[in-house]
Amino acid sequence: MRYTLAEIAARIGGRVVGDENLVLTGINSLESATANELSFAEEKYLEKAVSSKAGALLVPRHDEALPQALIICEHPFRAAGKIMQEIDKAAQMVESTIDQNATIGENVSLGNNLHIGPGAVIGNDVIIGDNSRIYANTYIGRGVTLGANCRIYPGVVIRENCSLGDRVIIHPNSVIGSDGFGFLQIGGCNVKIPQIGGVIIEDDVEIGALCTINRAALDKTIIGRGTKLDDHVHLGHGVKVGHEVIMCAQVGISGSVKIGNQVLLGPRSGTVDHIEIGDRARLMAGTSAAKDLAGDQDYGGIPAVPAKQALRQLMAATHLPKDRGRLAVLEKRVQELEKLLQEKL
Amino acid sequence: MRYTLAEIAARIGGRVVGDENLVLTGINSLESATANELSFAEEKYLEKAVSSKAGALLVPRHDEALPQALIICEHPFRAAGKIMQEIDKAAQMVESTIDQNATIGENVSLGNNLHIGPGAVIGNDVIIGDNSRIYANTYIGRGVTLGANCRIYPGVVIRENCSLGDRVIIHPNSVIGSDGFGFLQIGGCNVKIPQIGGVIIEDDVEIGALCTINRAALDKTIIGRGTKLDDHVHLGHGVKVGHEVIMCAQVGISGSVKIGNQVLLGPRSGTVDHIEIGDRARLMAGTSAAKDLAGDQDYGGIPAVPAKQALRQLMAATHLPKDRGRLAVLEKRVQELEKLLQEKL
Amino acid sequence: MRYTLAEIAARIGGRVVGDENLVLTGINSLESATANELSFAEEKYLEKAVSSKAGALLVPRHDEALPQALIICEHPFRAAGKIMQEIDKAAQMVESTIDQNATIGENVSLGNNLHIGPGAVIGNDVIIGDNSRIYANTYIGRGVTLGANCRIYPGVVIRENCSLGDRVIIHPNSVIGSDGFGFLQIGGCNVKIPQIGGVIIEDDVEIGALCTINRAALDKTIIGRGTKLDDHVHLGHGVKVGHEVIMCAQVGISGSVKIGNQVLLGPRSGTVDHIEIGDRARLMAGTSAAKDLAGDQDYGGIPAVPAKQALRQLMAATHLPKDRGRLAVLEKRVQELEKLLQEKL
Repeated sequence: MRYTLAEIAARIGGRVVGDENLVLTGINSLESATANELSFAEEKYLEKAVSSKAGALLVPRHDEALPQALIICEHPFRAAGKIMQEIDKAAQMVESTIDQNATIGENVSLGNNLHIGPGAVIGNDVIIGDNSRIYANTYIGRGVTLGANCRIYPGVVIRENCSLGDRVIIHPNSVIGSDGFGFLQIGGCNVKIPQIGGVIIEDDVEIGALCTINRAALDKTIIGRGTKLDDHVHLGHGVKVGHEVIMCAQVGISGSVKIGNQVLLGPRSGTVDHIEIGDRARLMAGTSAAKDLAGDQDYGGIPAVPAKQALRQLMAATHLPKDRGRLAVLEKRVQELEKLLQEKL
Repeated sequence: MRYTLAEIAARIGGRVVGDENLVLTGINSLESATANELSFAEEKYLEKAVSSKAGALLVPRHDEALPQALIICEHPFRAAGKIMQEIDKAAQMVESTIDQNATIGENVSLGNNLHIGPGAVIGNDVIIGDNSRIYANTYIGRGVTLGANCRIYPGVVIRENCSLGDRVIIHPNSVIGSDGFGFLQIGGCNVKIPQIGGVIIEDDVEIGALCTINRAALDKTIIGRGTKLDDHVHLGHGVKVGHEVIMCAQVGISGSVKIGNQVLLGPRSGTVDHIEIGDRARLMAGTSAAKDLAGDQDYGGIPAVPAKQALRQLMAATHLPKDRGRLAVLEKRVQELEKLLQEKL
Repeated sequence: MRYTLAEIAARIGGRVVGDENLVLTGINSLESATANELSFAEEKYLEKAVSSKAGALLVPRHDEALPQALIICEHPFRAAGKIMQEIDKAAQMVESTIDQNATIGENVSLGNNLHIGPGAVIGNDVIIGDNSRIYANTYIGRGVTLGANCRIYPGVVIRENCSLGDRVIIHPNSVIGSDGFGFLQIGGCNVKIPQIGGVIIEDDVEIGALCTINRAALDKTIIGRGTKLDDHVHLGHGVKVGHEVIMCAQVGISGSVKIGNQVLLGPRSGTVDHIEIGDRARLMAGTSAAKDLAGDQDYGGIPAVPAKQALRQLMAATHLPKDRGRLAVLEKRVQELEKLLQEKL
């Protein structure tokens, strides 16, 4: 980024107070911004903003106390978001070319304006929609369908016959469509069950770095529209995830689990296999679901119980060592009472 | 897949009831199969099968209630497995070629019928057995030995001097032989201990996607014959794993742990370092072993205790908040008794 | 490795007792060493060393009971470390060349004596210091700065505008600078917040295999000098880590957490977001920090409490099922006392 204050003001529809020709090279928080960076403050942060080292601020009104150059605009936070988006767009910009070091299979259907980076390997019978960006050293297996405007970061592996919608983002080194973990135990040996099901990823899904989304023996593993996964998330074979679900880092979902819409799974939470989590259920960090959980409720604990109960249990557990002492004392007192009564009555 | 009913019947040794020329393009579960897919039902599922939308069914006997085309065969589940294996084999089929974009080092010994994909990098002094398939963008370090009929999926990294047996499968982006985590603390600094041990992976081992199998400072890290690892599994330096062990997703084993034969480690279970887990021990999901565990027993909890005890503890913990109340009430009642007795006796 | 005993003695400054021409091909522990391997024993292990199958030993003094060839040296453990370092150095040796199958962007500043392996992709405006080794199939995004003597193992992805110091080691398939997990919920949809902050990794940091170090919306994610991460570690957006911190495998740190110097995080431990962990705090395996933790103290449990308390709680919990029975018995006894007193007094 390299803009004058006047250029930024024009972009977001604001009014400059100060040097219009000041050049800014980035945007940052009030605490971290430096003299050549822009920052922003809503009304309630104006006082705090006075001590910011930012070269310029997006603010909702003029305030004499602010020593920085200013851009007055209605919604500073939203305006900052717009600038951030432009910077991000520029940072993610890649040429619309198919690199000469990419390997493209037979009978591949390529959309317009594609970026396919060096070392990318596209299998036979793959379909890729317009404007998608397939970064370096990715692997797109035979028969995969990829929608428009997708972003597949370096090192991602998508195995054969998976299907992805539009605007899907997959972060580096994630693996889609790897074999589910299925074995038959025959005579002390583990015999592999072929995993020939596929994976369906709907529109607007975002998958973090180093995630695994497994295929099943039969049937499909599905991630519904708008769902977002953080890094190191594992979805076992045949898992069905609803719309606009949020899964934080290191979540692990075992095979054949069904997760409703707008569910929230906190960091390191997980489930046993074959259970259902209802719409809008929210699992706190580290929760481990061992049976079906109804929707519209918060959960915590191992195994998962309603969050209030989980917190009460945790709180009670902190008193355990002391309570054991109280119990032992009581036993003595009762024994003495019994002895006393036996003597006296 | 694209077979007529007659072709499928011939392959599995069954008898067609219905249109022999019906074309089927896949196999699926009773619930999910569509009109151009095959499904299957053992005797006890025949009733449920009536409502399946599958175009044809593998069944043990003719049943007038079934509206689908049928193939009568002795063991429908086993027959389905055979079809699934054929589909999988076709899906995993790759040409026996060494891609021109692969990099092959010096003094490499290559078996017959190999597939080495584009972007694969094979170091000096590597040995690869017959029929092995080394997918795109893999890295096989100097001096690695790889047996016959192995499948090394895209993005896998095997560092120098590791040794793999026959029929080993490693899923995408896993890392074999990375440095163990060993440092000496000298004057407040962490000084790296060189990790020059290797990794030995025996025949028929399968390793999931995004696993890490570390090498040790000295000595070998070993995974025994037939052992299967799900995704995101971590084995620290010098871990020794027995035969036919099952490790579910996100398991973490610290350095120098010894795991017996046919052990089962549930999802997200783990161990501290330098302990032993006996043959056929089974750890429930989330179990954390903090000391040696005897074999032929089930375990749960943090730290691991016998599973029955772990479940009793969990159950008791759900009563904790209530029990604290009971304890407080009892204390009051005893105090009143004591007071009463002091007054009256 | 392939040295005679005389050559080894010369290297570490020791005196040979036995066949100077004995050829050794490796170094190993007393238990595992074979006839063509070297091992080592400090004074207190000399007795145990008698039964070692090693061909030769590094020992502090001559001992008639030892059947092996010997090298007498002042500090056997330190001498062994020196030999291990030499073996490791040889094993990690790669040619100082830029492979013809690497892709180098525009305006790249390359230091002297670099190794850039096949399939490596170096973006525009990247700076790489002297003697760094960028292995095969890595991805170094636009504008990344990399110091001298770094080792970036195969498959590592470093996204745009991250900055790494000198002597940084990153193990295979780790991901640096991937998007932080930030969304605004607007009308039931999750709208992505652009993540334009960067990652700063200081000198002498080592990052294990399959780690993720995320960038933030604004601000920087920082890993301080000398810090070491084991495999599968996740650092969320904007995390600040101090100097010489140790993080064991599968640790997960949520966004904006601040970690002091010389902190130790045991395997599978983690934190919620926006908290601070003080200098030299130590978290036991599986600990989950839910609020600020003061430094110079040990912690355990979910949520984290001082380690002694955590152990007392765990111990008390093992008595829970029995204690519930004691509580019920007490209630009965008190009830009988009350009844008795009501009748008699």
